[in-house]
Amino acid sequence: MKNTFGNSFCVTLFGESHGQAIGAVLDGLKPGEEIDLQKISALLKMRKGAAAFSTKRNEKDEFKIVSGFFEGKTTGTPLCILIENNDTKSADYSEMKSVARPSHADYTAFLKYHGYNDYRGGGHFSGRITAALTAAGAIALQILERRGVKIGTHILSCDDVSDRHFENCEKDFEKLFSLSFPVLDDAARERIEEKITAARKDGDSVGGVLETVVTGFPASVGEPWFDTVEGVLSHILFSVPAVKGVSFGAGFDFGKMTGSEANDPFIIRDGKVITQTNRNGGINGGITNSMPIVINCAVKPTPSIYKTQKTIDFEKNEQTELLIKGRHDPAIIHKASVVVTAAAAIALLDLLSGRFGTDLNGI
Amino acid sequence: MKNTFGNSFCVTLFGESHGQAIGAVLDGLKPGEEIDLQKISALLKMRKGAAAFSTKRNEKDEFKIVSGFFEGKTTGTPLCILIENNDTKSADYSEMKSVARPSHADYTAFLKYHGYNDYRGGGHFSGRITAALTAAGAIALQILERRGVKIGTHILSCDDVSDRHFENCEKDFEKLFSLSFPVLDDAARERIEEKITAARKDGDSVGGVLETVVTGFPASVGEPWFDTVEGVLSHILFSVPAVKGVSFGAGFDFGKMTGSEANDPFIIRDGKVITQTNRNGGINGGITNSMPIVINCAVKPTPSIYKTQKTIDFEKNEQTELLIKGRHDPAIIHKASVVVTAAAAIALLDLLSGRFGTDLNGI
Amino acid sequence: MKNTFGNSFCVTLFGESHGQAIGAVLDGLKPGEEIDLQKISALLKMRKGAAAFSTKRNEKDEFKIVSGFFEGKTTGTPLCILIENNDTKSADYSEMKSVARPSHADYTAFLKYHGYNDYRGGGHFSGRITAALTAAGAIALQILERRGVKIGTHILSCDDVSDRHFENCEKDFEKLFSLSFPVLDDAARERIEEKITAARKDGDSVGGVLETVVTGFPASVGEPWFDTVEGVLSHILFSVPAVKGVSFGAGFDFGKMTGSEANDPFIIRDGKVITQTNRNGGINGGITNSMPIVINCAVKPTPSIYKTQKTIDFEKNEQTELLIKGRHDPAIIHKASVVVTAAAAIALLDLLSGRFGTDLNGI
Amino acid sequence: MKNTFGNSFCVTLFGESHGQAIGAVLDGLKPGEEIDLQKISALLKMRKGAAAFSTKRNEKDEFKIVSGFFEGKTTGTPLCILIENNDTKSADYSEMKSVARPSHADYTAFLKYHGYNDYRGGGHFSGRITAALTAAGAIALQILERRGVKIGTHILSCDDVSDRHFENCEKDFEKLFSLSFPVLDDAARERIEEKITAARKDGDSVGGVLETVVTGFPASVGEPWFDTVEGVLSHILFSVPAVKGVSFGAGFDFGKMTGSEANDPFIIRDGKVITQTNRNGGINGGITNSMPIVINCAVKPTPSIYKTQKTIDFEKNEQTELLIKGRHDPAIIHKASVVVTAAAAIALLDLLSGRFGTDLNGI
Repeated sequence: MKNTFGNSFCVTLFGESHGQAIGAVLDGLKPGEEIDLQKISALLKMRKGAAAFSTKRNEKDEFKIVSGFFEGKTTGTPLCILIENNDTKSADYSEMKSVARPSHADYTAFLKYHGYNDYRGGGHFSGRITAALTAAGAIALQILERRGVKIGTHILSCDDVSDRHFENCEKDFEKLFSLSFPVLDDAARERIEEKITAARKDGDSVGGVLETVVTGFPASVGEPWFDTVEGVLSHILFSVPAVKGVSFGAGFDFGKMTGSEANDPFIIRDGKVITQTNRNGGINGGITNSMPIVINCAVKPTPSIYKTQKTIDFEKNEQTELLIKGRHDPAIIHKASVVVTAAAAIALLDLLSGRFGTDLNGI
Repeated sequence: MKNTFGNSFCVTLFGESHGQAIGAVLDGLKPGEEIDLQKISALLKMRKGAAAFSTKRNEKDEFKIVSGFFEGKTTGTPLCILIENNDTKSADYSEMKSVARPSHADYTAFLKYHGYNDYRGGGHFSGRITAALTAAGAIALQILERRGVKIGTHILSCDDVSDRHFENCEKDFEKLFSLSFPVLDDAARERIEEKITAARKDGDSVGGVLETVVTGFPASVGEPWFDTVEGVLSHILFSVPAVKGVSFGAGFDFGKMTGSEANDPFIIRDGKVITQTNRNGGINGGITNSMPIVINCAVKPTPSIYKTQKTIDFEKNEQTELLIKGRHDPAIIHKASVVVTAAAAIALLDLLSGRFGTDLNGI
Repeated sequence: MKNTFGNSFCVTLFGESHGQAIGAVLDGLKPGEEIDLQKISALLKMRKGAAAFSTKRNEKDEFKIVSGFFEGKTTGTPLCILIENNDTKSADYSEMKSVARPSHADYTAFLKYHGYNDYRGGGHFSGRITAALTAAGAIALQILERRGVKIGTHILSCDDVSDRHFENCEKDFEKLFSLSFPVLDDAARERIEEKITAARKDGDSVGGVLETVVTGFPASVGEPWFDTVEGVLSHILFSVPAVKGVSFGAGFDFGKMTGSEANDPFIIRDGKVITQTNRNGGINGGITNSMPIVINCAVKPTPSIYKTQKTIDFEKNEQTELLIKGRHDPAIIHKASVVVTAAAAIALLDLLSGRFGTDLNGI
Repeated sequence: MKNTFGNSFCVTLFGESHGQAIGAVLDGLKPGEEIDLQKISALLKMRKGAAAFSTKRNEKDEFKIVSGFFEGKTTGTPLCILIENNDTKSADYSEMKSVARPSHADYTAFLKYHGYNDYRGGGHFSGRITAALTAAGAIALQILERRGVKIGTHILSCDDVSDRHFENCEKDFEKLFSLSFPVLDDAARERIEEKITAARKDGDSVGGVLETVVTGFPASVGEPWFDTVEGVLSHILFSVPAVKGVSFGAGFDFGKMTGSEANDPFIIRDGKVITQTNRNGGINGGITNSMPIVINCAVKPTPSIYKTQKTIDFEKNEQTELLIKGRHDPAIIHKASVVVTAAAAIALLDLLSGRFGTDLNGI
């Protein structure tokens, strides 16, 4: 289905970095849901990230909803969000049109689209498109939140610096919204910021690992095969640019565990079934068990660095060197953290809508 | 789409551990493809795994193809593979019907299906269903191989023991088929087998990490958003029981890298564009670049252990203890390695069929 | 999606006329639904049709459910129905393998499958496959009936003979089950049977028009664009072999009406909103309005006739003549009436499941 | 999938009659296809219809393509077309917000969206949305035409007046583009225009039947079950407002034919296999046979009439009467003819893309 995600609640993305506009169409929204436009703006602002580590591209990210929204509420018909591109300096890109930036999509896009893609600023592959994805996610988030589902993402590690895990999710999620940089522990935040500053000075970039937690998500959602909660979430999370790994619960640490360490005993607390530990990250057999869903995403370093790199000119089919000019970031993991939250919200709302119907009956 | 995977080449799974039969329907197969039934049998045999570490369930895994296959070749119409269940001792399971095995799907299945699911032996959640998935993958593999695409999976690590990476893929893939246990390095294999034997003696189990490599896969396949190659592959790989993490290329190691370490320079070798390193695992911007696709899967330890575990009886809604009887394995990672290969083959054939059409024109 | 129909409740068909078995996989069934196997048998028997007008192929149509069905109820996991082929005389077909039967799919199948399709008895195109579709529909029907939704189909016309319309749907639907030939009016039935008998004597065949009515279907189901109730129903109805036209309500008669004749005034009767007339066949703007859904299907005459026909040998690429031997029917409209009911049930259950969720909450 | 149509080439619609904008996202377009914007404008102009029979709403239908289009060609990434709404007089509609216009979607929309839909001018159900569908179809048409596929639609009948069938398709299709009203025969056109004028004077409206022919479409496209060419085409055609019947080839006339009259003999002419007659409308067994695809659509009379109608106020739940004010048309069949062509083009391009891959290799 290419640029459309979802079976019951669907999001279609469109747009290029230097085109007229980017946007998203959201279909299958429950009618009558209030949407707070300020919350969309707030998430878009978070996505743009702390000034210190973000590019100079000065987009206001002003969005307009052109359909599916009436008198402050969703109508239930497709909701289209548009974000116009204003600050597009095409001149920056034209000369290196056919020089592949390593670890970017320039070369694969050339092959796939036979050279007809809009190459300016990465075109449809640009991180800019995540503004539309984020706006879509911001709407899904509000609908989830109204049903007690909350999502938060922080930088769990960057290089050798680790943040603490979520402790009090409610408070920690709120804290993340107030922070200019999504690290829970103050000391860790400072050290990660130093890492990024150092990378920037060196003309280099850094990666990291994100931790996302979803609380309040109903049990019994997901399928045993194929449309497992893990499968559906990972499907969309790998669309967040630079994400190259997705795991749930203990994830890759399971590789060093024994069954007796890894299993989560079921217990009854306050009349409710929970698990004593949550190494399975809220999912058993592809289906939610009411415990928090715990996701880790590996984020690779920004491919754009200020260093001369060996590469090819794919039109001339010859070896060349490249020193990328223009705006780029020493880290995108803080931006990715917002997009991961948004993307997760989209997938989770789709799963809920499939399970409980368009009207989300009973939740 | 629940138990159906794929857009252009689709696989539908059905069956329960103790039902009459399990099976798969494959739709969208190119007509006229020879299918070597011996190769299906061989992969099914690999899946059953080395006798020492596998359960006593004695299934012959004899399959029959009841449609879509005529005079030794695919017809292009849906191919249904059936595998009958013979060795089903239901008595083993009835008494603990409502006692949730920790980290299994018993409790979530009860919630999802309101208690109507076939609980015997895990029912539709049973690892047994992977026999059908493996048979389907064995067919996809043959069609891919005929076009130069090969896939191999080995145990990269188990606890603190690591196997070597693939060196000569062609030879290593062949070697894997001859091994009773999928570890490339002889010393590492011995040590991992010791780990499993020790776990078995202790009534416990172990997990591990798999490495899968795909060679010869054409460039230009995949989508920038949503149907990225990573997204499509991970979607199906999380259906392999016990897989809780999926990463590509350097995966979670990206978190400690800088951009200059992580980027793969493009070079021209023998007139062909390749990358000097392959930290992106053959995928840039969601699209294949002709380099080997490198996948890691984290596999959790077998949840079934011979130790008393705290859990609940979900029908009585009360706390209880469980000592699992019956057959179970101290490790399933060696079985998972085969299912991962099969599942990857299915997703890759779907991606190819979408890109090049049902007839796989031009490849 | 080829041989799979549906988004929320999905049916996948497989099998060939002379292969080992045909069957269907039903996915997305609400768990815990009792299925009366006798009702499946009864519908399969109806599909085989009155002895006088049906082929000599002597299939018992004994089905078995090999998965997704436990202790008399659906489990909620994929339900696979298998029907083995017993009475397959391949010899009948081999000699005319490459001679295209006019108005059959022999030639288009040859082009599509490049000659690799199982040509015996029409292979995957055979009306035999409708036994699997009927069995799937018989299950959907029971789930619908439990919620007050009933479906009946009769022959509205054959040549110049017309049956009466449904009057008392409940009674008329029951009557149809008791009839050997689905015509409501006794005189009309006799005359249509005479038409068919005459055609058979002449080595020819007849077509007709079916009328299907669905009662008790909830309002508010369907989408304004694309997945209109009309669009979804017609999509599956054109899979019923020989159906070449599908219309709703007044259908093609609208072409001679004025708006004041065609519009259905809304009225309130017994506190319930209904329409005074039902020319729109229960659907406004693609969405059900609680009135009976009225469908007409045009069925072409059986293409197999006992007359010499001009045609081609598509392997030799030369003109030839054909006198079809073997078994075939002077009419299939009575069989088609059963398959139309079954197919409609599948589409309607899919629409309900999308609207109200897998558990059909609230209906 | 609600407001998205297609598997390989997908169109997503959005917008409401009186919202900010309507539009469509086209995904899966072959990259590098030149798009003539004049041709889009021309089709949009045709859709607006002859001044005499169309509403006073004065929309310029100026569209802009905001993504997926670069240097005059498709990029292969999602192409979004936007058409802003200018001439929106909401005041016309507010007072009769909850009075259901008979045969319109007001009441079913109220039920489906629980009263949250944008009711102004029919909202998302408005015929206005067909401008976006037409623009999308105009793009698909150009891509088809470049491969020799042409589509034309005329009014075959209105009340008791019949147009002639297509004779020389190439010429007739061109003629249709030059006509202000799509009837091929001059006398018939005059008489149909008289019918419409008379209806307008009477405050009433008329319906009719459309005939669409597709020439040059490749053989071997379509599926035997479910995704038959008939099923896929009808699925989208029932989205054209007022279409209540779709048939192929002889359609409902098959009901009075014998097999010997209905069968199309295969013959070889100029070395090419064709059928002597084309009663099956170019489709055998759901698959194209290279003959022209012949489609009939039944179009109901415009539901908006200038006569007092009995209806309900669905918020007050009481009986009332309605005299519709504002702009409406005595006929929409001439507009529908354009939308049918556009919708058919979308479905046919989707079928081609699935069969031959995104790049339409080999055609």
